[in-house]
Amino acid sequence: MKQHKREIKKIVLAYSGGLDTSIIIPWLKENYDGAEIVGICTNVGQDEDWDGMEKKALASGASKLYIRDIREEFARDFLFRIVRAGARYEGKYLLGTSIARPLQAKCQVEVALQENANAVAHGCTGKGNDQVRFELTYKALAPQLEVIAPWRVWDISSREDAIEYAQERGIPLGNISKKNIYSRDWNIWHMSHEGGDLEDPWNRPKNEMFQLTKSPQEAPDKETEITIDFEKGFPVGIDGKRLGAVELLSRLNKLGAENGIGRADMVETRVVGMKSRGVYETPAGEILLTALAELEMMTMDFNTLSFKRKMSQQYADIVYAGKWYTTFRESMDAFMDKAYQYVTGSVRLVLYKGNVIIAGRKSPYSLYLEDLASFGESSYDHTDATGFINLYGLATGVEAMVHKRIDAEEGQAPEMKHVAATFHDK
Amino acid sequence: MKQHKREIKKIVLAYSGGLDTSIIIPWLKENYDGAEIVGICTNVGQDEDWDGMEKKALASGASKLYIRDIREEFARDFLFRIVRAGARYEGKYLLGTSIARPLQAKCQVEVALQENANAVAHGCTGKGNDQVRFELTYKALAPQLEVIAPWRVWDISSREDAIEYAQERGIPLGNISKKNIYSRDWNIWHMSHEGGDLEDPWNRPKNEMFQLTKSPQEAPDKETEITIDFEKGFPVGIDGKRLGAVELLSRLNKLGAENGIGRADMVETRVVGMKSRGVYETPAGEILLTALAELEMMTMDFNTLSFKRKMSQQYADIVYAGKWYTTFRESMDAFMDKAYQYVTGSVRLVLYKGNVIIAGRKSPYSLYLEDLASFGESSYDHTDATGFINLYGLATGVEAMVHKRIDAEEGQAPEMKHVAATFHDK
Amino acid sequence: MKQHKREIKKIVLAYSGGLDTSIIIPWLKENYDGAEIVGICTNVGQDEDWDGMEKKALASGASKLYIRDIREEFARDFLFRIVRAGARYEGKYLLGTSIARPLQAKCQVEVALQENANAVAHGCTGKGNDQVRFELTYKALAPQLEVIAPWRVWDISSREDAIEYAQERGIPLGNISKKNIYSRDWNIWHMSHEGGDLEDPWNRPKNEMFQLTKSPQEAPDKETEITIDFEKGFPVGIDGKRLGAVELLSRLNKLGAENGIGRADMVETRVVGMKSRGVYETPAGEILLTALAELEMMTMDFNTLSFKRKMSQQYADIVYAGKWYTTFRESMDAFMDKAYQYVTGSVRLVLYKGNVIIAGRKSPYSLYLEDLASFGESSYDHTDATGFINLYGLATGVEAMVHKRIDAEEGQAPEMKHVAATFHDK
Amino acid sequence: MKQHKREIKKIVLAYSGGLDTSIIIPWLKENYDGAEIVGICTNVGQDEDWDGMEKKALASGASKLYIRDIREEFARDFLFRIVRAGARYEGKYLLGTSIARPLQAKCQVEVALQENANAVAHGCTGKGNDQVRFELTYKALAPQLEVIAPWRVWDISSREDAIEYAQERGIPLGNISKKNIYSRDWNIWHMSHEGGDLEDPWNRPKNEMFQLTKSPQEAPDKETEITIDFEKGFPVGIDGKRLGAVELLSRLNKLGAENGIGRADMVETRVVGMKSRGVYETPAGEILLTALAELEMMTMDFNTLSFKRKMSQQYADIVYAGKWYTTFRESMDAFMDKAYQYVTGSVRLVLYKGNVIIAGRKSPYSLYLEDLASFGESSYDHTDATGFINLYGLATGVEAMVHKRIDAEEGQAPEMKHVAATFHDK
Repeated sequence: MKQHKREIKKIVLAYSGGLDTSIIIPWLKENYDGAEIVGICTNVGQDEDWDGMEKKALASGASKLYIRDIREEFARDFLFRIVRAGARYEGKYLLGTSIARPLQAKCQVEVALQENANAVAHGCTGKGNDQVRFELTYKALAPQLEVIAPWRVWDISSREDAIEYAQERGIPLGNISKKNIYSRDWNIWHMSHEGGDLEDPWNRPKNEMFQLTKSPQEAPDKETEITIDFEKGFPVGIDGKRLGAVELLSRLNKLGAENGIGRADMVETRVVGMKSRGVYETPAGEILLTALAELEMMTMDFNTLSFKRKMSQQYADIVYAGKWYTTFRESMDAFMDKAYQYVTGSVRLVLYKGNVIIAGRKSPYSLYLEDLASFGESSYDHTDATGFINLYGLATGVEAMVHKRIDAEEGQAPEMKHVAATFHDK
Repeated sequence: MKQHKREIKKIVLAYSGGLDTSIIIPWLKENYDGAEIVGICTNVGQDEDWDGMEKKALASGASKLYIRDIREEFARDFLFRIVRAGARYEGKYLLGTSIARPLQAKCQVEVALQENANAVAHGCTGKGNDQVRFELTYKALAPQLEVIAPWRVWDISSREDAIEYAQERGIPLGNISKKNIYSRDWNIWHMSHEGGDLEDPWNRPKNEMFQLTKSPQEAPDKETEITIDFEKGFPVGIDGKRLGAVELLSRLNKLGAENGIGRADMVETRVVGMKSRGVYETPAGEILLTALAELEMMTMDFNTLSFKRKMSQQYADIVYAGKWYTTFRESMDAFMDKAYQYVTGSVRLVLYKGNVIIAGRKSPYSLYLEDLASFGESSYDHTDATGFINLYGLATGVEAMVHKRIDAEEGQAPEMKHVAATFHDK
Repeated sequence: MKQHKREIKKIVLAYSGGLDTSIIIPWLKENYDGAEIVGICTNVGQDEDWDGMEKKALASGASKLYIRDIREEFARDFLFRIVRAGARYEGKYLLGTSIARPLQAKCQVEVALQENANAVAHGCTGKGNDQVRFELTYKALAPQLEVIAPWRVWDISSREDAIEYAQERGIPLGNISKKNIYSRDWNIWHMSHEGGDLEDPWNRPKNEMFQLTKSPQEAPDKETEITIDFEKGFPVGIDGKRLGAVELLSRLNKLGAENGIGRADMVETRVVGMKSRGVYETPAGEILLTALAELEMMTMDFNTLSFKRKMSQQYADIVYAGKWYTTFRESMDAFMDKAYQYVTGSVRLVLYKGNVIIAGRKSPYSLYLEDLASFGESSYDHTDATGFINLYGLATGVEAMVHKRIDAEEGQAPEMKHVAATFHDK
Repeated sequence: MKQHKREIKKIVLAYSGGLDTSIIIPWLKENYDGAEIVGICTNVGQDEDWDGMEKKALASGASKLYIRDIREEFARDFLFRIVRAGARYEGKYLLGTSIARPLQAKCQVEVALQENANAVAHGCTGKGNDQVRFELTYKALAPQLEVIAPWRVWDISSREDAIEYAQERGIPLGNISKKNIYSRDWNIWHMSHEGGDLEDPWNRPKNEMFQLTKSPQEAPDKETEITIDFEKGFPVGIDGKRLGAVELLSRLNKLGAENGIGRADMVETRVVGMKSRGVYETPAGEILLTALAELEMMTMDFNTLSFKRKMSQQYADIVYAGKWYTTFRESMDAFMDKAYQYVTGSVRLVLYKGNVIIAGRKSPYSLYLEDLASFGESSYDHTDATGFINLYGLATGVEAMVHKRIDAEEGQAPEMKHVAATFHDK
């Protein structure tokens, strides 16, 4: 909708501590007539100099910095829903960045409302997905707030420009001057890598690029066996011990990383339309989705599971596009709340040099009955199958008879030009 | 449909050379008044004593045995379509047995028509999927033929019964007496394992059970790099060298098996309704589906690929259920003939101890344009994103405003009982 | 599963009062060694001699007859969910019979449990859908009960056989001797017609066959305008007056019937595989589904509505097949509970000689904003559209450029045989 | 993509003869430095002063006007595909405008290439769908052409502005000064109406607004019976007489219009995100889609038809969004080419005061077999149904038993906190 040119007096910025968002602070003040800039930085599990961050934000010109540790909420209400949904964007990407943005933007909106700010700002560029995710959340939660996206507007278009801009204004660079080849995002769920030599999709990622995981080659040459416990589609423990969401993820990240698990390399389709190349490390995620998929097969009926598999794709698309706070996403979760009520049990896994090997699954709600499936005697009546197949295949047989009869009568392929006429002789 | 009790004079049996189908021959003769029994055995890549097979069939009472090598047709027209379709039943099973049955049944029907037989018979039990696949193919191709399924009818219900029945009639047992713990199916695409200790889904398969593949542990501790070339969604070569379908599969099976690739363990839902546990080895299949999925992402637009992913699931269900010779399957393949016209290119893979690692992909039809996706300058106009997001998120913003306004007016959640009345004041 | 031959001492029969179920009583007693037969007849709105029914059942040999008026539950918890789901089997059939069976079977199971009966019996034939619906409900709610389906077993295969059988046993025929040309089912939602001259699908139904509705020709030549009020996707009132479920349906049935609304004629696919021809009268149903579809478009976002439309089809298939008491159906309803939370408002309709004409719709949650959609000035910024289209069409443009460039380089259609080689020159 | 500011010397304009596109001519010349403007006007069946159009375009400043009669191609290759696809956007809109735009834009692109023009221009506003449809076609067919959309750029924002602008430049107004309340689009398939009093969705459209069809009230009080003949899903004749596509549509339009058929009134979701209200008249379309849906049910198997119904929705969405020239649309048509190979036959309809009543259907490929479906004796074996239901309902029964057993063991609802512990006792 058309931007009503209101007076902007206070702006809440999604602040990361990095160069990209630091230079936004002076720019906003210069371009919005000395507006007050309040930063909000969320802890979703990334490694940061948390102690020095407030100082840095204030030194860059912010009037205040909020820091929020949202890891538990992130893990429990967001990441575990990704697990349950079995959501992999384009069949692969475990949505690590996509799923963080709505929660981060929600925190930002909360601060904006609390601070009576007029606007929210972010540091995303005009080519990426994150701008969409931040802004769709703003629209969903506080459509009245003005949105400012400096990277789509200003002339700064390279890292060098940005450094120069920062230096001119005395923004502390920290270790920013250290060149990063890759563009990265990191949280408790994953680390992503883009850019640099990855821009040629024929290039294999260099092993030194990876930050979280060992390569399968580097992983130890021995098996690690674990059991993951689920309740109603959500992970609740490891090896029979109940764990909080963050603790469970941390444990699995460590185990996965050590065993070379969770790397994915793909060419994906961005929301804004172009294909892009991304490489991801998601050790706990890879383990959890693999495990739950196995438990589902044992505890969920074919129809529900089949439909849910199609929903997984829909869910991934919606999350990727930043549409978390929507009726559609909530409705899909309501479907799953019901569908997963009996998806409770344990999956035994072996982790070994990049492999997540299914070693067993059990559930009090198992629909697998050894008696029914086995080759020996059972309560199953084999003659039922005759009736079943006769009716299951009835339509196939009728179709075959009908098509063959006509083909025969008419020569081979029926001459369509004669057909219409023929009908009326009937 | 009701079985018309016609006189059955000649029966064509899907003959495997094993005990299960050998004992059918005398049984048919005894129960169908001395009917002539003709066997047909297809070579789909399984290991058999091909030279001794005719002798064995005749010794069991058959009047004739047809042997057909259908490996090339099987690979090119059936397996490669599975590859293109990306079909994995319940997300895992690469359909190795399912996809063979329709072609085998088609051969059987051809022999039956050529021999002027009245009936076809198979050796499948009443609990499994194969009976459905055979019989649906019979219905689709020759609905006039009588179908005989002795295992659903007779009293033989164990291996011991079967051996006794064979011995009483002088059927050659060969090395049949050697006890097989598992029920297996083998062809050029896969080997499946069911039964024995697998019947407890908490049991991990023993390594000695596997026949085709090394375990990841046994695989060599070094990478094998290969490039697979595709044209229009079908594999055509390895490392730039064009190969016939069977040759290509054999090569990949060898490479995959050596590197510990292609084992899958699952609890699946059978056509006849029960859950069952199966373990599969499909080395070439695993490599090919992984590789093509990567090439698709580079060469196919999001809409087509997204729809096709849902179709994959449908395709797998249809093949699993034996509905190969149907309008539906053919229509899905027609869709894919068009959708894959530009899915041509190469995928570079690294095989290592159970891992199929994507190392690169390229295509003359690549939709990935480095210029568009990169972070630097390009023909992409960042300000387009503002308009895009404003309209992409328009509905979200409108919905938020509308719901919030009402919620505010009405207290919080609107009192539904007042609403209907309110409407009419408008 | 194999029928365990237990001793059957008491059987609860779904009793209709008609010939088809009356003769089952003596048959069950004769074939189950004098078992006690308890009848249960549910009132779902059909016209019956309710006062004489118990007498008739006892005269036929039943020990007891339960009569239950389940109209309100049927309307509110079953039919209104059909409305909300927008469920039309094969795009047409409003599921009038399908949706009654699970509730009727549930009542029967309740009686069986209360009576400590061993078995349940029904009067459905082996060709129809109803046997499936009854028995799937038995399996879902009380899988331990034996199921008896006499019409699939005995030799009675015509109306004449049945009458003779009844007369031999002194079963009261009532006005049964009056020949019914059509097979019918009737409840508060619909009346269905099958058989007779309808068996030729080229025959147009005779006007005298219809029982509930006037034909459009007979309907008065004047408009009837009504407003239907909905809350969260369920109908709650007419013309601003709140009504109970049965009352609302009765009113709409009267209005629809009078105005020639609700007849449907189709060839449908039965669960047991064959095509069959059915004609239906569903006046209130036709009005309600038409009205709600209109309100949805105004209050639900595109993504949710689009997904829900596909779910409608799934829902209809599931209900048609008798799978009401399943996780899948319940999960779909959970989805809709959320998706319809704001589908509250009113739809103005004109009924006229078979037409249900939309004349207006309004909602406090309307997502239609006149300001946005109109041609005049508004808060909408037209230049946003440029950015939107540039990115919305980005993939299309890229694809076109890529395909054209290659086609040009290669002659026209790229020679696929050269491609693989080319790749490796890169 | 970023607009490369090239020198624009020749522009091809999609010219309608109306005020909206007439004023674009001088504007383009003024803003593109005297560029040459070539007009192209396509005849898709709208009523125009075809003879005077060239003169008017030249008088407005165009150097040339191409007029192309594309009705036959439009009907045969575009509209008939809508019929076969059964495509109704949001369940209602028969896509009359949406489907014309790609063909019109294709003609425009052809002229642009022939004329060596640098740019294409259209007269669509920034709020509507048509801009998207035109521009996506340009991108698909000639991505190198510059696109000019004056209505998104200039200051003219009302009808009055436009008239003033025209008068200042001496553009002939013709009868343009006559005020049109509604915004309309007309072609051989439909007429659409938007704006005016329709902007309040509670308003019923005035009868005098409609231009093509009689109201049901005005229609004659007598039935008109016709038979429509289809081959492979496409209409080929009426009452046994083969007709060309335009002729067939004209005939049905006349019959439908006379009988009050084809009006639709809805609130729809535009591509650019907002809800809008549209009213449509599509007499032939309504008749054809109704008829074909009936024939499909008789000649197509359940699986294919069920999948195709979901595809219908996808197809409608794609056409609505202007994505005609895409791999996805072509792939869906390839699916249907195969799926409809046997959808050949005739449907008998009665048209009466707004009603399209199905009166019969027949086909040489009918899958309806009277023998199978009827209540009397047939080749159908009723006992098959027992086996069928036992297996069809097997999963339902197993699930019920498992869930009940556990619920019983555990009290009622299983206490989830105990479950994880329990597993490990197994």
